[in-house]
Amino acid sequence: METVEKGRNEFEVELEPLGRREFCLAGESILDCLHRLGVDLTSVCGGKGKCHACKVKLLKGKASLFSSAELEAFTREQIEAGWRLACQAFPTSPCKIFVPPESMIVSQRVQVEGLSVEVALEPPVKTYRVDLTAPSLSQLVADADGLLDALNGKDPGTGRSIDINVIRNISPQLRSWDWRCSVFARGDEVISIAPQSTCPLGLAVDLGSTKIAGYLVDLSTGRTLKAKGVMNPQISYGEDIITRISQAMGSPGGGKELQEAALNAINQMALDLCKEVDAHPTSIMESVIVGNTAMHHLLLCLPVEQLALSPYVPAVRKALDIKARDVGLQIAPGAYTHILPNVAGFVGADHVAMLLATEAEWSKGIVIAMDIGTNTEVSLVNNGQIVSASCASGPAFEGYHIKDGVRASKGAIEKIRVTRGGVQYDTIDGAPPIGICGSGILDAMAQLLLAGVIDRGGRMIEGSHPRVRTNQNRTEFVVVDEKESGGRPPIVITQKDIRELQLAKAAIRSGVQILLQHSGVSEQQIDKVVIAGAFGSYIDLSNSIAIGLLPSLPLDRFKQVGNAAGTGAKLALVSMSKRSHAGEIGNRANYIELATYPKFQPIFIQACNIGPYQATQWPSP
Amino acid sequence: METVEKGRNEFEVELEPLGRREFCLAGESILDCLHRLGVDLTSVCGGKGKCHACKVKLLKGKASLFSSAELEAFTREQIEAGWRLACQAFPTSPCKIFVPPESMIVSQRVQVEGLSVEVALEPPVKTYRVDLTAPSLSQLVADADGLLDALNGKDPGTGRSIDINVIRNISPQLRSWDWRCSVFARGDEVISIAPQSTCPLGLAVDLGSTKIAGYLVDLSTGRTLKAKGVMNPQISYGEDIITRISQAMGSPGGGKELQEAALNAINQMALDLCKEVDAHPTSIMESVIVGNTAMHHLLLCLPVEQLALSPYVPAVRKALDIKARDVGLQIAPGAYTHILPNVAGFVGADHVAMLLATEAEWSKGIVIAMDIGTNTEVSLVNNGQIVSASCASGPAFEGYHIKDGVRASKGAIEKIRVTRGGVQYDTIDGAPPIGICGSGILDAMAQLLLAGVIDRGGRMIEGSHPRVRTNQNRTEFVVVDEKESGGRPPIVITQKDIRELQLAKAAIRSGVQILLQHSGVSEQQIDKVVIAGAFGSYIDLSNSIAIGLLPSLPLDRFKQVGNAAGTGAKLALVSMSKRSHAGEIGNRANYIELATYPKFQPIFIQACNIGPYQATQWPSP
Repeated sequence: METVEKGRNEFEVELEPLGRREFCLAGESILDCLHRLGVDLTSVCGGKGKCHACKVKLLKGKASLFSSAELEAFTREQIEAGWRLACQAFPTSPCKIFVPPESMIVSQRVQVEGLSVEVALEPPVKTYRVDLTAPSLSQLVADADGLLDALNGKDPGTGRSIDINVIRNISPQLRSWDWRCSVFARGDEVISIAPQSTCPLGLAVDLGSTKIAGYLVDLSTGRTLKAKGVMNPQISYGEDIITRISQAMGSPGGGKELQEAALNAINQMALDLCKEVDAHPTSIMESVIVGNTAMHHLLLCLPVEQLALSPYVPAVRKALDIKARDVGLQIAPGAYTHILPNVAGFVGADHVAMLLATEAEWSKGIVIAMDIGTNTEVSLVNNGQIVSASCASGPAFEGYHIKDGVRASKGAIEKIRVTRGGVQYDTIDGAPPIGICGSGILDAMAQLLLAGVIDRGGRMIEGSHPRVRTNQNRTEFVVVDEKESGGRPPIVITQKDIRELQLAKAAIRSGVQILLQHSGVSEQQIDKVVIAGAFGSYIDLSNSIAIGLLPSLPLDRFKQVGNAAGTGAKLALVSMSKRSHAGEIGNRANYIELATYPKFQPIFIQACNIGPYQATQWPSP
Repeated sequence: METVEKGRNEFEVELEPLGRREFCLAGESILDCLHRLGVDLTSVCGGKGKCHACKVKLLKGKASLFSSAELEAFTREQIEAGWRLACQAFPTSPCKIFVPPESMIVSQRVQVEGLSVEVALEPPVKTYRVDLTAPSLSQLVADADGLLDALNGKDPGTGRSIDINVIRNISPQLRSWDWRCSVFARGDEVISIAPQSTCPLGLAVDLGSTKIAGYLVDLSTGRTLKAKGVMNPQISYGEDIITRISQAMGSPGGGKELQEAALNAINQMALDLCKEVDAHPTSIMESVIVGNTAMHHLLLCLPVEQLALSPYVPAVRKALDIKARDVGLQIAPGAYTHILPNVAGFVGADHVAMLLATEAEWSKGIVIAMDIGTNTEVSLVNNGQIVSASCASGPAFEGYHIKDGVRASKGAIEKIRVTRGGVQYDTIDGAPPIGICGSGILDAMAQLLLAGVIDRGGRMIEGSHPRVRTNQNRTEFVVVDEKESGGRPPIVITQKDIRELQLAKAAIRSGVQILLQHSGVSEQQIDKVVIAGAFGSYIDLSNSIAIGLLPSLPLDRFKQVGNAAGTGAKLALVSMSKRSHAGEIGNRANYIELATYPKFQPIFIQACNIGPYQATQWPSP
């Protein structure tokens, strides 16, 4: 036997296709073991057996008996093939475990491109080149004082104070640079000094629940030098915000652990981005971070309990200027991080950033601006008046709670067309299909409706299409069958999947409808719909209208703007006017709590129906 | 045998009178062992065998052979009795070691009393009581934003920002206090919130090389609630500043270790002071710290290498406002520490604080203001014009480099009178004599001069007094002989001690003389001499004049002001006017480097002579 049993309480585990041999501790689930080993297995529900995301295959060895969650998650054939939920399975012997790519949170498609907006350069940090005189017995000037004097000589009032971290290195630095340096001042405070050739950089970060997008900007030109997207490693603590908040509240160090996960990812991203331009993160003189309110609070170690309880108030709404070291960011010694304002507990700084970036689109007329995600934020702007709401759309559009749903990674089915007798699909990178991602799921719903496979109520009709079948009393539509899948399980859309999608869609559509009613505006009066975010960039507009996710308007009234939150963060990074304007937008936005809207229930029920709506179908206000 | 040999490389050591049994590692000196065990044995020279301060007695067991430093430090009888220098002795068997109280740095007399100066209360932190409304679905206000709004309602513009550490607890705090609290604002920033009954406290600290004095102040009344003095634990890394700077530069973590030693002592002091008034250090809303430039730099982790090299410039001279957390002080969450300005590399913020506290004394006329210590800072104020200098007086007046010198602790001889045939002395607390402390040493020098035992050149004259004797070719004056000492070694003043005292005195007196010459003022024109500091409070003025340490002036022109640096720190704590005035004093003070003064050498040589001087005795400018 090639595996080794180490002591009584540890079992060797061999991980495929990672090619690692490690040890699993006694009493440790496969999920806990993989997390301990740094393997980022997806866990939406935080290890409770509910999300069925942490699928692995036991190739050799034994583990604990199947739990009821696993019996629900897998078919008989899958169980026989060795499939397990990593959170439910506890090894009882040395094991060989297959970790499928769709269960990993690496190498996902992350959108970092956004709108391009022209703005006058007006950065928070100014650069001054100074040539100092070395002190002598006849000219006794303390190092920091001499630097401030020189700065005030160039720009009176600029050198009022100097960050203590700058003073902590100033003496050896000035001597090694032969008393010539660049001084970086923010307002009247010196936040960094560096050799004269140093280019001041800025970092804009869009901290999403799922993805983190980072932009490295040259503060002397405003140009974006590099952009990068990574997955938010907090995902391994739970996919949705509420699970993560529970995690933060559940144990004394819970919040700290989540904070460090996100923070380390941002610091690593800063390092990676700087490497690409041959710089060091100490050249980053300012950073701007946006994120939804929960991400914002978790990153800043703010209290989150009140976010999860009615009336769901943030600890703070206004914009913040914090020393980067107080956030834990490893950038220039005295640098600040600017945090855009939140609107409410579930409409955060990322939505404000999106509004900032898309202002040209909504400054006139009646505009809906939305960012579709696990939580969908929607604002209706009526000639400058902003009303915002938050829709609990859930992760169905990101591939979760969907039987064969996956994230938008290699091999994910992103487009689906249902033809008379069959089905056609495209996968990301043209790879063999591993499951269906959000845009594919949305396509499927529309195509199944148009093909008569489901009705407006969402019922899947047996016999309506050759690909509809009944499997263990469950009706499903087969996208990739056993023959086409090359030995892997088939990929299907089940009746239950359709129900999940109906709930997700209804959450968003009812939010839009309530905003319209609240503002006394009809669907047809909408001049423009701005759709931000990764998912929003990839969806097919016609299909989205067909299922009633989006209002029934001519296609030219829609604008897909990509990661506009990232663009907004960049604007606030390079322009102090834009930054203060973001503060105004945050203040102006009026939040309404959908669940307390009087007609919420009937509107939601109506929005569960699939397909476009007549104005008369909605309950009147 | 009652001691145990543990392994090949460790020896049990029994410590008396501490009553502890511990282990000494192989290759570890007794000094290193005691430091590791947390026993604060004095070490002036940092373990080099030079200062003879770390005397211990080996009662049982064996140690390494005597070093040449030990042969110099002890008499034959002392060596036979088992006396060792802890830094030179390495145990080679289980041992029983006596650690005499005079070698410990605990329970020393530390002066915390200072001048009392009346000042209008104008504290940096203001207190506001606010009653907030709990947020509801119809009144969605974020916690921090609601607090700032309420504050701005009371005092417009006060609530512009709120420290991130305050926001980190605000939500559970406001809820547990039922939305009623006191808000503490510094300028336009909220730095803390607390239950409404909380009294805002302030902490003033005088961080001396040897002693740390702390004052807990009620910021709502300006009243000093408690004061406390402790020894600076950095002493165990070396008594004088230069040894500590070498220590900080010598190893990568050296500076950090010294910083932590002082910081921990200040944090512990804050905790102890607060306990005495039933408060918690989180109620300390502001702190002010003063210290000499080296202490200042070591506490703030500033670079010190350039302080030790000509032209001896500080990293920073100006006053600093730093978040207490960036210094490491554990006080209110968003509190600041204000650091008074330095004047130069060897005239620090403590001297500025002393000048601030004594301004009433020097605002008119010609005044000498000095703080005598290991380093003696002197300012000459000529109708408001301040010229400052630093004198390397060394630790002789603190009892070091003096054969039987001790610190001012219980049993130290603090007063000496030499009579025709004998000697009389007083000890601290009337305890049996253990050695001579600074004021006693100064008395002895004057009394020996007046009794004709030493001449003006400092030579001890054999046969001049029954107590003069020759011991192993060394001339000495016996203060406490073998019969009087009750079995302990005799206490003597040696010829070498007189030489050490001459150098210390000359350093100070030549500094004063150079300042006078620099300002074109004669000794007799001095209107007042202000003497600050612990040593200066205890010295006998007549004796100090008699040896020429102080100018030869009528006694009513002298004023001993105790710890005026501490008083100055308190003033800067409770009065923003005084604080900004301290900044002006720091700016106004002109530093002169004594060693570069043209007539330094001949003035110093003249000042080595003991006794008052005629104006004509000094080299002309």
